[in-house]
Amino acid sequence: MGRWEPNARDRLERAALALFAEHGYDATTVAQIADRAGLTKSTFFRHFADKREVLFGGQDMLMELFTGAIQAAPPTATPADCLAEALAAAAVAFTPERHDLAPRRQAVIAAHSELQERELLKRARLAAAMAEALHARGTEDVTARLAAQLGVLAFSTSYARWADPGNQRPFTEIARATLSDLQVRAASLAAGA
Amino acid sequence: MGRWEPNARDRLERAALALFAEHGYDATTVAQIADRAGLTKSTFFRHFADKREVLFGGQDMLMELFTGAIQAAPPTATPADCLAEALAAAAVAFTPERHDLAPRRQAVIAAHSELQERELLKRARLAAAMAEALHARGTEDVTARLAAQLGVLAFSTSYARWADPGNQRPFTEIARATLSDLQVRAASLAAGA
Repeated sequence: MGRWEPNARDRLERAALALFAEHGYDATTVAQIADRAGLTKSTFFRHFADKREVLFGGQDMLMELFTGAIQAAPPTATPADCLAEALAAAAVAFTPERHDLAPRRQAVIAAHSELQERELLKRARLAAAMAEALHARGTEDVTARLAAQLGVLAFSTSYARWADPGNQRPFTEIARATLSDLQVRAASLAAGA
Repeated sequence: MGRWEPNARDRLERAALALFAEHGYDATTVAQIADRAGLTKSTFFRHFADKREVLFGGQDMLMELFTGAIQAAPPTATPADCLAEALAAAAVAFTPERHDLAPRRQAVIAAHSELQERELLKRARLAAAMAEALHARGTEDVTARLAAQLGVLAFSTSYARWADPGNQRPFTEIARATLSDLQVRAASLAAGA
Protein backbone atom coordinates (compact mmCIF):
# COMPACT_ATOMS: atom_id res chain seq x y z
CA MET A 1 0.00 0.00 0.00
CA GLY A 2 1.52 3.31 -1.07
CA ARG A 3 1.75 6.37 1.12
CA TRP A 4 -0.67 8.25 -1.10
CA GLU A 5 -4.29 7.29 -0.45
CA PRO A 6 -6.88 9.17 -2.48
CA ASN A 7 -9.35 11.02 -0.24
CA ALA A 8 -7.80 9.40 2.81
CA ARG A 9 -8.70 12.29 5.11
CA ASP A 10 -12.30 12.31 3.96
CA ARG A 11 -12.60 8.52 4.24
CA LEU A 12 -11.15 8.56 7.76
CA GLU A 13 -13.51 11.32 8.80
CA ARG A 14 -16.55 9.47 7.48
CA ALA A 15 -15.44 6.21 9.09
CA ALA A 16 -14.84 7.95 12.44
CA LEU A 17 -18.22 9.70 12.44
CA ALA A 18 -19.99 6.43 11.62
CA LEU A 19 -18.18 4.60 14.44
CA PHE A 20 -18.74 7.43 16.94
CA ALA A 21 -22.46 7.23 16.15
CA GLU A 22 -22.55 3.43 16.42
CA HIS A 23 -20.39 2.79 19.49
CA GLY A 24 -19.92 6.21 21.08
CA TYR A 25 -16.89 8.46 20.92
CA ASP A 26 -15.07 7.00 23.93
CA ALA A 27 -15.41 3.37 22.82
CA THR A 28 -14.03 4.02 19.32
CA THR A 29 -10.31 3.45 18.70
CA VAL A 30 -8.02 4.82 16.02
CA ALA A 31 -7.41 1.22 14.85
CA GLN A 32 -11.14 0.74 14.28
CA ILE A 33 -11.39 4.02 12.37
CA ALA A 34 -8.48 3.13 10.09
CA ASP A 35 -9.87 -0.37 9.58
CA ARG A 36 -13.35 0.90 8.68
CA ALA A 37 -11.80 3.33 6.20
CA GLY A 38 -9.69 0.54 4.68
CA LEU A 39 -6.50 2.37 5.66
CA THR A 40 -3.68 1.87 8.14
CA LYS A 41 -3.20 3.47 11.55
CA SER A 42 -0.12 5.22 10.25
CA THR A 43 -2.19 6.78 7.47
CA PHE A 44 -4.61 7.97 10.16
CA PHE A 45 -1.75 9.60 12.05
CA ARG A 46 -0.50 11.34 8.93
CA HIS A 47 -3.83 13.20 8.86
CA PHE A 48 -4.85 13.53 12.51
CA ALA A 49 -2.95 13.80 15.78
CA ASP A 50 -5.63 11.74 17.55
CA LYS A 51 -9.31 10.84 17.22
CA ARG A 52 -10.39 14.14 18.75
CA GLU A 53 -8.73 15.94 15.86
CA VAL A 54 -11.14 14.24 13.46
CA LEU A 55 -13.78 16.47 15.06
CA PHE A 56 -11.72 19.59 15.64
CA GLY A 57 -8.90 19.58 13.09
CA GLY A 58 -11.03 21.67 10.75
CA GLN A 59 -11.04 24.52 13.26
CA ASP A 60 -7.32 25.13 12.77
CA MET A 61 -7.93 25.57 9.06
CA LEU A 62 -10.84 27.84 9.88
CA MET A 63 -8.62 30.00 12.06
CA GLU A 64 -6.18 30.40 9.18
CA LEU A 65 -8.98 31.25 6.75
CA PHE A 66 -10.43 33.85 9.13
CA THR A 67 -7.19 35.53 10.06
CA GLY A 68 -5.87 35.34 6.49
CA ALA A 69 -8.97 37.11 5.16
CA ILE A 70 -8.71 39.82 7.83
CA GLN A 71 -5.03 40.39 7.01
CA ALA A 72 -5.77 40.49 3.28
CA ALA A 73 -8.68 42.94 3.51
CA PRO A 74 -7.94 46.34 1.94
CA PRO A 75 -6.56 48.99 4.33
CA THR A 76 -9.83 50.95 4.06
CA ALA A 77 -11.93 47.95 5.19
CA THR A 78 -13.79 48.57 8.48
CA PRO A 79 -13.91 45.87 11.20
CA ALA A 80 -17.42 45.00 9.96
CA ASP A 81 -16.09 44.60 6.40
CA CYS A 82 -13.33 42.34 7.75
CA LEU A 83 -15.89 40.09 9.45
CA ALA A 84 -17.79 39.76 6.17
CA GLU A 85 -14.53 38.85 4.38
CA ALA A 86 -13.62 36.31 7.06
CA LEU A 87 -16.99 34.56 6.83
CA ALA A 88 -16.84 34.53 3.03
CA ALA A 89 -13.36 32.97 3.16
CA ALA A 90 -14.61 30.23 5.50
CA ALA A 91 -17.10 29.05 2.88
CA VAL A 92 -14.48 26.86 1.17
CA ALA A 93 -14.66 24.57 4.20
CA PHE A 94 -18.45 24.17 3.93
CA THR A 95 -19.11 22.71 0.53
CA PRO A 96 -22.23 20.73 -0.46
CA GLU A 97 -20.10 17.53 -0.44
CA ARG A 98 -19.37 18.02 3.24
CA HIS A 99 -22.90 18.99 4.20
CA ASP A 100 -23.96 15.55 5.42
CA LEU A 101 -20.96 15.34 7.80
CA ALA A 102 -21.88 18.44 9.79
CA PRO A 103 -24.99 17.19 11.65
CA ARG A 104 -23.17 13.93 12.47
CA ARG A 105 -20.24 15.85 13.91
CA GLN A 106 -22.61 18.04 15.92
CA ALA A 107 -24.48 15.01 17.30
CA VAL A 108 -21.23 13.45 18.55
CA ILE A 109 -20.19 16.67 20.28
CA ALA A 110 -23.64 17.32 21.76
CA ALA A 111 -23.58 13.89 23.44
CA HIS A 112 -20.21 14.39 25.19
CA SER A 113 -19.51 17.11 27.76
CA GLU A 114 -15.72 17.02 27.30
CA LEU A 115 -16.14 17.54 23.55
CA GLN A 116 -18.56 20.39 24.19
CA GLU A 117 -15.89 22.06 26.31
CA ARG A 118 -13.37 21.52 23.54
CA GLU A 119 -15.77 23.20 21.10
CA LEU A 120 -16.22 26.16 23.47
CA LEU A 121 -12.47 26.48 23.85
CA LYS A 122 -11.85 26.27 20.10
CA ARG A 123 -14.37 29.05 19.53
CA ALA A 124 -12.81 31.17 22.23
CA ARG A 125 -9.42 30.68 20.55
CA LEU A 126 -10.94 31.57 17.21
CA ALA A 127 -12.27 34.81 18.72
CA ALA A 128 -8.87 35.58 20.25
CA ALA A 129 -7.13 35.01 16.90
CA MET A 130 -9.62 37.21 15.03
CA ALA A 131 -9.28 39.97 17.64
CA GLU A 132 -5.51 39.83 17.27
CA ALA A 133 -5.73 40.00 13.46
CA LEU A 134 -8.06 43.02 13.66
CA HIS A 135 -5.87 44.70 16.25
CA ALA A 136 -2.82 44.13 14.03
CA ARG A 137 -4.49 46.19 11.29
CA GLY A 138 -5.04 49.09 13.65
CA THR A 139 -8.47 48.39 15.14
CA GLU A 140 -8.55 49.56 18.74
CA ASP A 141 -8.19 46.60 21.15
CA VAL A 142 -11.67 46.60 22.77
CA THR A 143 -13.42 47.14 19.42
CA ALA A 144 -11.33 44.34 17.94
CA ARG A 145 -12.42 41.97 20.71
CA LEU A 146 -16.07 42.96 20.35
CA ALA A 147 -15.96 42.54 16.56
CA ALA A 148 -14.27 39.15 16.98
CA GLN A 149 -17.03 37.94 19.33
CA LEU A 150 -19.64 39.14 16.85
CA GLY A 151 -17.75 37.34 14.06
CA VAL A 152 -17.48 34.05 15.94
CA LEU A 153 -21.15 34.18 16.91
CA ALA A 154 -22.05 34.94 13.29
CA PHE A 155 -19.92 31.97 12.26
CA SER A 156 -21.32 29.49 14.80
CA THR A 157 -24.91 30.55 14.07
CA SER A 158 -24.29 30.28 10.32
CA TYR A 159 -22.65 26.89 10.73
CA ALA A 160 -25.62 25.56 12.72
CA ARG A 161 -28.05 26.90 10.10
CA TRP A 162 -26.01 25.50 7.23
CA ALA A 163 -25.61 22.11 8.99
CA ASP A 164 -29.36 21.71 9.43
CA PRO A 165 -30.23 18.54 7.46
CA GLY A 166 -33.09 20.37 5.72
CA ASN A 167 -30.89 23.28 4.61
CA GLN A 168 -30.26 23.77 0.88
CA ARG A 169 -28.71 27.25 0.93
CA PRO A 170 -24.96 27.69 0.45
CA PHE A 171 -22.86 28.72 3.44
CA THR A 172 -21.87 32.09 1.93
CA GLU A 173 -25.46 33.19 1.57
CA ILE A 174 -26.39 32.06 5.10
CA ALA A 175 -23.31 33.73 6.56
CA ARG A 176 -24.05 37.05 4.84
CA ALA A 177 -27.65 37.07 6.10
CA THR A 178 -26.63 35.98 9.60
CA LEU A 179 -23.99 38.68 9.94
CA SER A 180 -26.49 41.36 8.86
CA ASP A 181 -29.06 39.97 11.28
CA LEU A 182 -26.54 40.04 14.15
CA GLN A 183 -25.64 43.63 13.30
CA VAL A 184 -29.32 44.58 13.62
CA ARG A 185 -29.52 42.79 16.98
CA ALA A 186 -26.29 44.50 18.13
CA ALA A 187 -27.74 47.91 17.23
CA SER A 188 -30.83 47.11 19.26
CA LEU A 189 -28.76 45.97 22.29
CA ALA A 190 -26.62 49.08 21.91
CA ALA A 191 -29.75 51.21 22.07
CA GLY A 192 -30.52 49.60 25.43
CA ALA A 193 -33.20 47.21 24.20
CA MET B 1 -6.19 23.38 65.78
CA GLY B 2 -9.95 23.72 65.37
CA ARG B 3 -11.81 23.27 62.14
CA TRP B 4 -12.73 26.95 62.05
CA GLU B 5 -9.89 29.11 60.80
CA PRO B 6 -10.66 32.80 60.50
CA ASN B 7 -10.11 34.06 56.94
CA ALA B 8 -8.70 30.69 55.93
CA ARG B 9 -9.75 31.05 52.30
CA ASP B 10 -8.21 34.48 52.01
CA ARG B 11 -4.99 33.38 53.73
CA LEU B 12 -4.69 30.35 51.45
CA GLU B 13 -5.26 32.49 48.38
CA ARG B 14 -2.61 35.01 49.40
CA ALA B 15 -0.13 32.25 50.27
CA ALA B 16 -0.76 30.51 46.94
CA LEU B 17 -0.32 33.67 44.89
CA ALA B 18 2.92 34.50 46.72
CA LEU B 19 4.29 30.98 46.09
CA PHE B 20 3.18 30.94 42.43
CA ALA B 21 5.05 34.22 41.95
CA GLU B 22 8.16 32.97 43.75
CA HIS B 23 8.49 29.41 42.41
CA GLY B 24 6.07 29.26 39.49
CA TYR B 25 2.62 27.68 39.39
CA ASP B 26 3.77 24.17 38.44
CA ALA B 27 6.44 23.89 41.13
CA THR B 28 4.11 24.93 43.96
CA THR B 29 2.37 22.18 45.96
CA VAL B 30 -0.79 22.29 48.06
CA ALA B 31 1.31 21.31 51.09
CA GLN B 32 3.52 24.38 50.57
CA ILE B 33 0.47 26.63 50.23
CA ALA B 34 -1.12 25.31 53.43
CA ASP B 35 2.21 25.59 55.24
CA ARG B 36 2.80 29.19 54.12
CA ALA B 37 -0.74 30.08 55.26
CA GLY B 38 -0.15 28.39 58.64
CA LEU B 39 -2.96 25.96 57.93
CA THR B 40 -3.29 22.25 57.18
CA LYS B 41 -3.72 20.53 53.82
CA SER B 42 -7.17 19.36 54.93
CA THR B 43 -8.17 22.98 55.56
CA PHE B 44 -6.97 23.77 52.03
CA PHE B 45 -9.15 21.02 50.60
CA ARG B 46 -12.18 22.29 52.51
CA HIS B 47 -11.88 25.50 50.49
CA PHE B 48 -10.44 24.42 47.12
CA ALA B 49 -10.63 21.22 45.06
CA ASP B 50 -7.03 21.73 43.92
CA LYS B 51 -4.45 24.49 43.46
CA ARG B 52 -5.97 25.53 40.15
CA GLU B 53 -9.20 26.36 41.96
CA VAL B 54 -7.34 29.01 43.95
CA LEU B 55 -7.16 30.92 40.66
CA PHE B 56 -10.54 29.96 39.18
CA GLY B 57 -12.85 29.14 42.10
CA GLY B 58 -14.12 32.72 42.09
CA GLN B 59 -15.53 32.25 38.61
CA ASP B 60 -18.16 29.80 39.86
CA MET B 61 -19.36 32.41 42.31
CA LEU B 62 -19.35 34.96 39.51
CA MET B 63 -21.50 32.71 37.36
CA GLU B 64 -24.04 32.48 40.16
CA LEU B 65 -24.00 36.24 40.69
CA PHE B 66 -24.49 36.90 36.97
CA THR B 67 -27.25 34.37 36.38
CA GLY B 68 -28.95 35.22 39.70
CA ALA B 69 -29.10 38.91 38.78
CA ILE B 70 -30.50 38.12 35.33
CA GLN B 71 -33.17 35.87 36.84
CA ALA B 72 -34.05 38.47 39.46
CA ALA B 73 -34.35 41.40 37.04
CA PRO B 74 -37.91 42.73 36.65
CA PRO B 75 -39.96 41.20 33.82
CA THR B 76 -39.84 44.51 31.93
CA ALA B 77 -36.00 44.60 31.96
CA THR B 78 -34.43 44.47 28.49
CA PRO B 79 -31.39 42.25 27.76
CA ALA B 80 -29.22 45.39 28.07
CA ASP B 81 -30.77 46.14 31.49
CA CYS B 82 -30.04 42.56 32.54
CA LEU B 83 -26.36 42.95 31.61
CA ALA B 84 -26.16 46.09 33.74
CA GLU B 85 -27.75 44.22 36.66
CA ALA B 86 -25.38 41.28 36.24
CA LEU B 87 -22.29 43.50 36.27
CA ALA B 88 -23.57 45.42 39.29
CA ALA B 89 -24.15 42.14 41.15
CA ALA B 90 -20.59 41.01 40.41
CA ALA B 91 -19.19 44.02 42.28
CA VAL B 92 -19.41 42.18 45.64
CA ALA B 93 -16.53 39.99 44.45
CA PHE B 94 -14.29 42.97 43.65
CA THR B 95 -13.86 44.87 46.90
CA PRO B 96 -10.98 47.23 47.70
CA GLU B 97 -9.58 44.57 50.09
CA ARG B 98 -9.19 42.15 47.20
CA HIS B 99 -7.77 44.69 44.78
CA ASP B 100 -4.12 43.80 45.36
CA LEU B 101 -4.78 40.10 44.58
CA ALA B 102 -6.08 40.70 41.08
CA PRO B 103 -2.86 41.74 39.28
CA ARG B 104 -0.99 38.87 40.99
CA ARG B 105 -3.60 36.40 39.79
CA GLN B 106 -3.42 37.83 36.27
CA ALA B 107 0.39 37.61 36.23
CA VAL B 108 0.29 33.89 37.15
CA ILE B 109 -2.24 33.15 34.40
CA ALA B 110 -0.43 35.25 31.79
CA ALA B 111 2.76 33.22 32.36
CA HIS B 112 1.14 29.81 31.80
CA SER B 113 -0.55 28.72 28.57
CA GLU B 114 -2.66 25.99 30.21
CA LEU B 115 -4.04 28.48 32.70
CA GLN B 116 -4.77 30.93 29.89
CA GLU B 117 -6.84 28.23 28.20
CA ARG B 118 -8.64 27.59 31.46
CA GLU B 119 -9.46 31.30 31.68
CA LEU B 120 -10.78 31.31 28.10
CA LEU B 121 -12.91 28.26 28.84
CA LYS B 122 -14.27 29.73 32.07
CA ARG B 123 -15.29 32.88 30.21
CA ALA B 124 -16.93 30.86 27.46
CA ARG B 125 -18.88 28.97 30.12
CA LEU B 126 -19.84 32.24 31.76
CA ALA B 127 -21.20 33.46 28.41
CA ALA B 128 -23.12 30.21 27.89
CA ALA B 129 -24.68 30.49 31.37
CA MET B 130 -25.66 34.13 30.83
CA ALA B 131 -27.16 33.31 27.43
CA GLU B 132 -29.19 30.52 29.01
CA ALA B 133 -30.43 32.80 31.80
CA LEU B 134 -31.48 35.45 29.27
CA HIS B 135 -33.13 32.86 27.05
CA ALA B 136 -35.03 31.50 30.07
CA ARG B 137 -36.63 34.92 30.56
CA GLY B 138 -37.86 34.98 26.98
CA THR B 139 -34.99 36.64 25.09
CA GLU B 140 -34.71 35.14 21.63
CA ASP B 141 -31.81 32.65 21.46
CA VAL B 142 -29.44 34.48 19.08
CA THR B 143 -30.00 37.83 20.83
CA ALA B 144 -29.38 36.10 24.18
CA ARG B 145 -26.07 34.75 22.94
CA LEU B 146 -25.02 38.10 21.51
CA ALA B 147 -25.97 39.91 24.73
CA ALA B 148 -24.08 37.32 26.78
CA GLN B 149 -20.91 37.84 24.70
CA LEU B 150 -21.26 41.58 25.16
CA GLY B 151 -21.75 41.05 28.90
CA VAL B 152 -18.71 38.80 29.30
CA LEU B 153 -16.55 41.20 27.29
CA ALA B 154 -17.82 44.08 29.43
CA PHE B 155 -16.95 42.04 32.49
CA SER B 156 -13.46 41.00 31.40
CA THR B 157 -12.61 44.53 30.24
CA SER B 158 -13.93 45.99 33.51
CA TYR B 159 -12.01 43.43 35.53
CA ALA B 160 -8.75 44.25 33.74
CA ARG B 161 -9.33 47.99 34.28
CA TRP B 162 -10.24 47.50 37.92
CA ALA B 163 -7.24 45.20 38.50
CA ASP B 164 -4.78 47.77 37.17
CA PRO B 165 -2.47 48.51 40.12
CA GLY B 166 -2.93 52.26 39.58
CA ASN B 167 -6.73 52.05 39.59
CA GLN B 168 -8.64 53.72 42.43
CA ARG B 169 -12.19 53.56 41.03
CA PRO B 170 -14.69 51.05 42.39
CA PHE B 171 -15.66 48.10 40.16
CA THR B 172 -19.32 49.19 39.85
CA GLU B 173 -18.37 52.54 38.38
CA ILE B 174 -15.87 51.01 35.94
CA ALA B 175 -18.36 48.33 34.88
CA ARG B 176 -21.10 50.87 34.22
CA ALA B 177 -18.81 53.02 32.06
CA THR B 178 -17.37 49.99 30.25
CA LEU B 179 -20.79 48.59 29.37
CA SER B 180 -21.89 51.95 27.96
CA ASP B 181 -18.66 52.23 26.02
CA LEU B 182 -19.15 48.73 24.54
CA GLN B 183 -22.70 49.61 23.56
CA VAL B 184 -21.38 52.61 21.62
CA ARG B 185 -18.81 50.40 19.91
CA ALA B 186 -21.48 47.78 19.13
CA ALA B 187 -23.67 50.47 17.52
CA SER B 188 -20.74 51.53 15.39
CA LEU B 189 -19.99 47.92 14.30
CA ALA B 190 -23.70 47.42 13.62
CA ALA B 191 -23.63 50.44 11.35
CA GLY B 192 -20.87 48.72 9.36
CA ALA B 193 -17.97 50.78 10.73
